[in-house]
Amino acid sequence: MRASCGLEPAHVHELRDALQETSQNGYDFTSIPLVHPRLVREHVSGAAAARPGPFTRSDMLLSTSDWSNLVVVALNASACQGCDSGNRNVVANSEASLQQELLLASHLSVPVVMARITSQYCINLARILHNKVVAGCSYLVWVRVPLVSPADEAAYFRSDIKAPNNTDTWTWWNRFHSIANTEKKIGLCLEIGADLPDEEVLERWLGEPVRCAVLPTSIWLTNKKGFPVLSSRHQLFVKKLHKLHSQFLITGHLRHPHLKFYQQYLDHIVQSEQQNEDAMSQYVRGYEDYLQCPLQPLMDNLESQTYEVFEKDPIKYQEYERAIYDALVDLVPEENKDERTVVVMVVGAGRGPLVRRALTAASQADRKIKLYAVEKNPNAVLTLHAWQEMEWGDKVSVVSCDMRDWQAPEEADILVSELLGSFGDNELSPECLDGAQKFLKSDGISIPSSYTSYIAPLQSPKLYNEVRSCREKDKHFLHHYETPYVVYLHNKREIAPSQELFTFNHPNRSAHIDNRRHKALQFRVTEDSAMHAIAGYFEATLYKEVKISIRPETHSPGMFSWFPILFPIKEPINVHAGEIIEIHFWRCVTSKNVWYEWCVTDPVSSAIHNPNGRAYTIGL
Amino acid sequence: MRASCGLEPAHVHELRDALQETSQNGYDFTSIPLVHPRLVREHVSGAAAARPGPFTRSDMLLSTSDWSNLVVVALNASACQGCDSGNRNVVANSEASLQQELLLASHLSVPVVMARITSQYCINLARILHNKVVAGCSYLVWVRVPLVSPADEAAYFRSDIKAPNNTDTWTWWNRFHSIANTEKKIGLCLEIGADLPDEEVLERWLGEPVRCAVLPTSIWLTNKKGFPVLSSRHQLFVKKLHKLHSQFLITGHLRHPHLKFYQQYLDHIVQSEQQNEDAMSQYVRGYEDYLQCPLQPLMDNLESQTYEVFEKDPIKYQEYERAIYDALVDLVPEENKDERTVVVMVVGAGRGPLVRRALTAASQADRKIKLYAVEKNPNAVLTLHAWQEMEWGDKVSVVSCDMRDWQAPEEADILVSELLGSFGDNELSPECLDGAQKFLKSDGISIPSSYTSYIAPLQSPKLYNEVRSCREKDKHFLHHYETPYVVYLHNKREIAPSQELFTFNHPNRSAHIDNRRHKALQFRVTEDSAMHAIAGYFEATLYKEVKISIRPETHSPGMFSWFPILFPIKEPINVHAGEIIEIHFWRCVTSKNVWYEWCVTDPVSSAIHNPNGRAYTIGL
Repeated sequence: MRASCGLEPAHVHELRDALQETSQNGYDFTSIPLVHPRLVREHVSGAAAARPGPFTRSDMLLSTSDWSNLVVVALNASACQGCDSGNRNVVANSEASLQQELLLASHLSVPVVMARITSQYCINLARILHNKVVAGCSYLVWVRVPLVSPADEAAYFRSDIKAPNNTDTWTWWNRFHSIANTEKKIGLCLEIGADLPDEEVLERWLGEPVRCAVLPTSIWLTNKKGFPVLSSRHQLFVKKLHKLHSQFLITGHLRHPHLKFYQQYLDHIVQSEQQNEDAMSQYVRGYEDYLQCPLQPLMDNLESQTYEVFEKDPIKYQEYERAIYDALVDLVPEENKDERTVVVMVVGAGRGPLVRRALTAASQADRKIKLYAVEKNPNAVLTLHAWQEMEWGDKVSVVSCDMRDWQAPEEADILVSELLGSFGDNELSPECLDGAQKFLKSDGISIPSSYTSYIAPLQSPKLYNEVRSCREKDKHFLHHYETPYVVYLHNKREIAPSQELFTFNHPNRSAHIDNRRHKALQFRVTEDSAMHAIAGYFEATLYKEVKISIRPETHSPGMFSWFPILFPIKEPINVHAGEIIEIHFWRCVTSKNVWYEWCVTDPVSSAIHNPNGRAYTIGL
Repeated sequence: MRASCGLEPAHVHELRDALQETSQNGYDFTSIPLVHPRLVREHVSGAAAARPGPFTRSDMLLSTSDWSNLVVVALNASACQGCDSGNRNVVANSEASLQQELLLASHLSVPVVMARITSQYCINLARILHNKVVAGCSYLVWVRVPLVSPADEAAYFRSDIKAPNNTDTWTWWNRFHSIANTEKKIGLCLEIGADLPDEEVLERWLGEPVRCAVLPTSIWLTNKKGFPVLSSRHQLFVKKLHKLHSQFLITGHLRHPHLKFYQQYLDHIVQSEQQNEDAMSQYVRGYEDYLQCPLQPLMDNLESQTYEVFEKDPIKYQEYERAIYDALVDLVPEENKDERTVVVMVVGAGRGPLVRRALTAASQADRKIKLYAVEKNPNAVLTLHAWQEMEWGDKVSVVSCDMRDWQAPEEADILVSELLGSFGDNELSPECLDGAQKFLKSDGISIPSSYTSYIAPLQSPKLYNEVRSCREKDKHFLHHYETPYVVYLHNKREIAPSQELFTFNHPNRSAHIDNRRHKALQFRVTEDSAMHAIAGYFEATLYKEVKISIRPETHSPGMFSWFPILFPIKEPINVHAGEIIEIHFWRCVTSKNVWYEWCVTDPVSSAIHNPNGRAYTIGL
């Protein structure tokens, strides 16, 4: 994916020339004012209101397809600001001027209009643009916000002045977007300066829908050969923005030998980044922020292709093999290896990947094993039988049965299973293994031996919109907010690091097994943020030191079998630095199914999500 | 309406005796624990879990109709608290115990279950009861909260200890209710102590759905004859609670000659209050918090009975008569009264009440007038013609025409109209009078000469629920949150006093009349509150000092023509003492219609309500 890059001329004398310059230099679009500054007029009253003639240049200067493909309309900046003036005449004039431009933008089918905000006082502007989006305008809206406010920039250079309040430009944008109902069609155009703020501040922007990043020529450095380059921190940020599918916009006077070098440089750094991409990044492409319903492998039978995808994981089965190896070596000392046969049962064997790994582990460890492959899906059992016939022979007994019902002919030394979901227990591993452990010896080993779910509060207008758009007519109007989704989290930011939620240990030898859970977790907010959802992960211990994890902090490198899980909340919650976010989670269990309920209780209380499992349960 | 009063025995030895005592002493219900304390058992493990025999006394002790009419179930208090214990066993045991009681309560069809909360840590309890309500339980839930927390009570008597944090019992309740999705079936049972807090604190409770007030015998005083009485502040509060249809519950040991005196006293004070009720209170009965769609008298023609109701207002027409009188006297000095005839036009004359008042005013003032009655509703014109024939003769010219289109034969000295809605301009008085003023003399008088709308942030779970229940299947899922309602506000509290919003003056002689408006208002919050809606009112100046108002602070006594208007918000907003609530309002105008848009921008930003008038417009 190459970098999409636009050019913003300082002045546009001739539209056609401006466009030609853009394309000749390798740029994809141009940002221009729709009404030539010379023609700007008053609308409400005054001499200029009555001036004869057209209100701007002819639309015939460009072809229809150029208008609709190559032009980003930069809305009159003083009109954008004037909408929220205290003066009624200024407001009326600014509104009329904006309406005129927006109607013309619609008429010409331009793809994007861009509005500049320069403070947090942009309520009326937000309303006007929001209302266009609600009315179904064809264009996207880019809200242009500086990464660092001019006041903060000034304060940075002068020790004698203190930055005033309300200079956090993220809150300008967040306020605008909140008033505009977090609409998906309203995105962010981020103006980047020569000095980048702290990493944490940058991260917060990466949770927002950045559609474009403005890179003024003034922030570019010059290398020895005279070419424009970016500082290494800028490069890194540009690469991250590109991953969010942000476009770029070059603005300002030419300060280097040729205009085309800026674009070429950007293209160069994002292309070279892609060449270094790992298998994981390739695998997830196309799945970024794409919501999927969690699997229900217990209630439904998986399809062959689902098995196939997961069998390809390069890490997961390697770790299982290590775990089985270690367990075998622990169970049978070197000196007894010829006397003792270890009974290994793979419960939920699927198409057999763990059976193969158990065989390899045994041969590596030089230990004798007797293997059972228990699987409830009769279609997968077909594959197991085929393998048995072709390769395994009597080393493996294939059993077509639900592990909870199976009457095992003997007790197992090792019970191996892969029943974990993105949230650890969410595919009902606890309930299955509690059933299966009746044929595990009292000193037997379960692989995995434990797993823990983790949650973190998430900022992501993108994911919030993805969830919101899942509304279905024939379901409860909150249904889509009360269902978890499996999703590769991309355009997001964790407001605080994830924390441990529920842990399950196997085998579970307590007299009264209770797999219900309830926990409250507190997350400290370090910067003003907006919370849109809750991210869920898990860590599992397969055996002793052998662990797998999809928690960002400890993610098993290269393991792609599990994307995170997302628990929505009904409404975004604005949180402030220093506040505590408290989240409650419940795991509820009946004889028929299992589900989660959740709510936020601090800094504000939300209602219980998914009460009684009305929107989502996992069938036993 | 008599006071509904219940009795809570300190101990219930025999259910039947307890019920008999209740009814013999004039009480309407009794509050009892469902499981006899002697029988309370462990559920999860332990010796008591295995105890044989029934888990409580026989349900046959009472008849089915007694269970379903006379019994409020007081849930096991330690189970209510235990649900949010940090100890897993305590939680499991408490949950099981509560489930048992709640299932039995359902089985017996008891009307109410009552849960006591003793801190803000009642998240799990809130979830359990909320989930029962969501699942469609038959009973109501009363959440029993002390008006003053025990810690605050203690601190009151001891200068050496400081009350700890989180002792504001309103926030306990608000948190509970928020987590329980502000459900309508979950109401409040307020425990009242001997010392009442400040008036402001009491007011905040009056905005909540108080279903019951507990009056322990210990807070009653004894009068000279030995009878129990309440302090005057308690009396006042009891009367206010009764107006919210709160029931009462007497608890504690008998401290006076007879049990029945408490009930008799309560009944006495609420009955005597009702005898002092004014006409206004009688008029509004049944309309409390009942949402009505605003009239559209411009687009639709009013019905005869609607005219009739409004004509009965004892105050409004009296003020109009005063205004016309004053204007006539101002216009024509005593010495010219025989020479000059004043042209008075009643625009929107309806069935003629203002015509009659104008005639009376003229005769009182002893001034000659020529009267035009202009009305667009042909059905009301019928009535005007009938009056003309019967009484008015050629003193009045009846004109069947829309005032905006009428070609008047001469210019008017006085233009009288009654086009005001609950929000002043919301029935499009500005647009109508701007049209009609073309036949008003340049020094002519408009009655009314100006009007102003007012808004205030409102706390009212009741009204929030009323709005929420207006959801219609075939409309946009936010439609009912984006429509104003006319409603007699009752179970509510203004979080801050109302402030001026939009003003219109007539005649309007500006060159470019613009009836669009935008204003932001800031309200200072003095106590932690929950905001559920925005209340709207108006004040109008008919002529000079003659004004009418429906603003609480200045309400014209006895005038009932207008109930306030209510603008909903989509989600309740929790606000804290010291914070500012900022509300933006827009009046939008096109050639076809007029509508309002609104949003809250501080302390948190809500999305624009009613963008482009998608849910509600007023037709021109």
